[in-house]
Amino acid sequence: MDVRSLVEELKETIDAERVSQNDTILEQHSKDESYHTPNLPDVVVFPKTAEEVSKIMKLAQKYKCPVIPFGIGSSLEGHVIPVKGGISLDFTLMNEIIDIREKDLLVVVQPGVTRTQLNEALKGYGLFFPVDPGADATLGGMAATGASGTTTVKYGTMRNQVQDLEVVLADGTIIHTGNMAAKSSSGYNLTSLFIGSEGTLGCFTELTLKVHGLPEYVMAARAVFQTVDDAVNAVVDVRQAGIPVARAELVDEQTMHVVNEHSQTDFPVKPTLLFEFHGNQSGLMEDVRLTKQILDDHNCRDFIYETDHAKRNQLWKVRHNMAYAFIHTYRGRKLMATDVCVPISELAGAIYHARKALFKSGIPGGIAGHVGDGNFHVTLMIDTNNAEEIARTKQLNKELVEYAISRRGTCTGEHGVGLGKKQFQRLEHGAAFDYMKKIKDVLDPNRILNPGKIF
Amino acid sequence: MDVRSLVEELKETIDAERVSQNDTILEQHSKDESYHTPNLPDVVVFPKTAEEVSKIMKLAQKYKCPVIPFGIGSSLEGHVIPVKGGISLDFTLMNEIIDIREKDLLVVVQPGVTRTQLNEALKGYGLFFPVDPGADATLGGMAATGASGTTTVKYGTMRNQVQDLEVVLADGTIIHTGNMAAKSSSGYNLTSLFIGSEGTLGCFTELTLKVHGLPEYVMAARAVFQTVDDAVNAVVDVRQAGIPVARAELVDEQTMHVVNEHSQTDFPVKPTLLFEFHGNQSGLMEDVRLTKQILDDHNCRDFIYETDHAKRNQLWKVRHNMAYAFIHTYRGRKLMATDVCVPISELAGAIYHARKALFKSGIPGGIAGHVGDGNFHVTLMIDTNNAEEIARTKQLNKELVEYAISRRGTCTGEHGVGLGKKQFQRLEHGAAFDYMKKIKDVLDPNRILNPGKIF
Repeated sequence: MDVRSLVEELKETIDAERVSQNDTILEQHSKDESYHTPNLPDVVVFPKTAEEVSKIMKLAQKYKCPVIPFGIGSSLEGHVIPVKGGISLDFTLMNEIIDIREKDLLVVVQPGVTRTQLNEALKGYGLFFPVDPGADATLGGMAATGASGTTTVKYGTMRNQVQDLEVVLADGTIIHTGNMAAKSSSGYNLTSLFIGSEGTLGCFTELTLKVHGLPEYVMAARAVFQTVDDAVNAVVDVRQAGIPVARAELVDEQTMHVVNEHSQTDFPVKPTLLFEFHGNQSGLMEDVRLTKQILDDHNCRDFIYETDHAKRNQLWKVRHNMAYAFIHTYRGRKLMATDVCVPISELAGAIYHARKALFKSGIPGGIAGHVGDGNFHVTLMIDTNNAEEIARTKQLNKELVEYAISRRGTCTGEHGVGLGKKQFQRLEHGAAFDYMKKIKDVLDPNRILNPGKIF
Repeated sequence: MDVRSLVEELKETIDAERVSQNDTILEQHSKDESYHTPNLPDVVVFPKTAEEVSKIMKLAQKYKCPVIPFGIGSSLEGHVIPVKGGISLDFTLMNEIIDIREKDLLVVVQPGVTRTQLNEALKGYGLFFPVDPGADATLGGMAATGASGTTTVKYGTMRNQVQDLEVVLADGTIIHTGNMAAKSSSGYNLTSLFIGSEGTLGCFTELTLKVHGLPEYVMAARAVFQTVDDAVNAVVDVRQAGIPVARAELVDEQTMHVVNEHSQTDFPVKPTLLFEFHGNQSGLMEDVRLTKQILDDHNCRDFIYETDHAKRNQLWKVRHNMAYAFIHTYRGRKLMATDVCVPISELAGAIYHARKALFKSGIPGGIAGHVGDGNFHVTLMIDTNNAEEIARTKQLNKELVEYAISRRGTCTGEHGVGLGKKQFQRLEHGAAFDYMKKIKDVLDPNRILNPGKIF
């Protein structure tokens, strides 16, 4: 690839200032928040419009040059690492909230808008956007990963929130995948195909997202258990009873300890469930009463309500900062998080199996997760200079994934495939994987879109 | 195509008794419930397993013979009409409920199971399957159409309910598109691609579906208005207030009149909204109170609760029998239903426009719809022997569709494309339509799967 000519042509096509080969900028775009090995892109470009992205794509085709869309680099599976160099397409300058359609409960945003930026803008309208992965990711990145988070048990994942995408395809064509109607049976559902495609099918240049009315009443609760088994079985029964919890998170005692140290909190160092309920006050009180009853049946010792806004926020801040608490506590080590998701009936068995495997591995870590969805993470703090420890970590992840897939679960509930889950795609999807490849080949015949990811 | 050899080979491949060229059976498989012109298949085959479907598909490839999956023929857009002859693949014998996974709120069914059959089986578990198009369609057909119905405003469409599909592809390969975990970010979302693909990408041989706990408490309400405008604006405000209604249906005065005549009921012949609320009793009471307040602001004269189970059922039976009421009243004419869906902010304008167009056309009919989703149907009773009237009906539909698409809506909210909406695909999807075609071509290069539909 003649990088020099490519860069010259890029500079002629859009502002030269927005085409960078500065060392610091290249280095910033070589990595994400994962343990995967960084690799430099050849050039970083900062487009401002879909038309510019289209022009860049056509140049990339001409040079058969990889294109890697980049949000803020908060991926946990190496999605944005330019493993074969090429153009890192940074969407920082496309961060405008274009339209807030209150009546339709829809917003139109550019891909570089972050979820907290959007929620800040929505506040005044009494609306909010529910999907909350830990990081303050960009909405384009979240859609590309098929992200989810703590509120998914009630509001769903990005798949449920994206109404329409404007996508620049590998050949530079700009398409819309959907419309603004609440439902449609017209043509193939391209929106869902692109969500979770991790930049391998096209680059998103505009997203229409569903938003929700702020709930009339919110209550959080903390439930402390003697054993992880009790906590997991309790949450399974709460789901089974059809109680519409808005959040249902497990934090094990190891994680609680790290969190307390880092956040100067004094939560009991016991397996804990964190709940949140959204609704009208009287309906919610009945839900909470029923939940408490179920938890009692599973030896819950403490069930503490947090109606106060500040206390509730503290609770969820702790949950969201959990990864940082681990990183802070184990300086010099890198975080690796497993991400399996299993049918809820298999959750207790899967977590039991994971805990045994974690303790046996001797690697420092803990278990936490969105147990209301059957999704949990084993956080592992690894010394990336220690080849034997890396091998042990990978073996542990492999065991967890194989266990989950054998129970009709998935290797990744929310972090995506990226580099880390490629090896499990055939096992998980079987013959379907070949047809994913065929679709990839027909939409990106020269394989310029985020090569080396998923496949 | 050498039909005789094909039929011989089919008979050798599966029981000869399940390969039929009987005139009555061919005729039954030539049509659906729509106004579209019937056409005979060459042969009807009744498979019992995915493996048999795979063998049939391989034979179809050999003979380049069309394959048209057939449920119970309740389509409203000609989906199952073998416009180019071929094999009508009837799933009547694949009607087993394979597994009810209570804890996971999932069921595994064969494609020929109908929605009432499933709900009958679920009753004993305190569970139900929410999607309810008017007809007692098969679940395979509903998934293929991307069907929805009156409860979609709360529970979503088939797209939200299908967890996994077993699909026999055009080359005979059997794949699974998903798993049983509540969420996954692993690989491309093929499940959503196949839902609504109308038999053009593969044949479903097994479905894993989400089911829901029967609500603790259910209340229905009937709200009578002086004008359609008031009724529509009221429902828009109810949605905007975030009240989680389970059903929100509009029936206009023309439709109410036909319904009363047919069902021997005496509902007021006025624009009416039918609501249903699901939840715990105290939460629901608060929702109903707030709804009534909003409706009052829109000059609602009568707001009648129906808590009684029998009365509630009567109300929804009336709603579901509406099409039959029209067919019964206008004997000799055929029903044609438009199916646009618009963003909720555009609903009042769209219905106002549709009513004007309906009255101007002079064709007997009425308006009803799932207005909570912005989806409504103009029911038109047409004399299919009158070419001028058919032309007038098609023109009316075209005007409605163009209006909807110009407001970022869709030509079909739930009936699918089939034969009737093909002409609007380019207008609605723009350049994206070319890429749908590319995906079709790569999965079905010889175009044997339900040819003549969508494209």
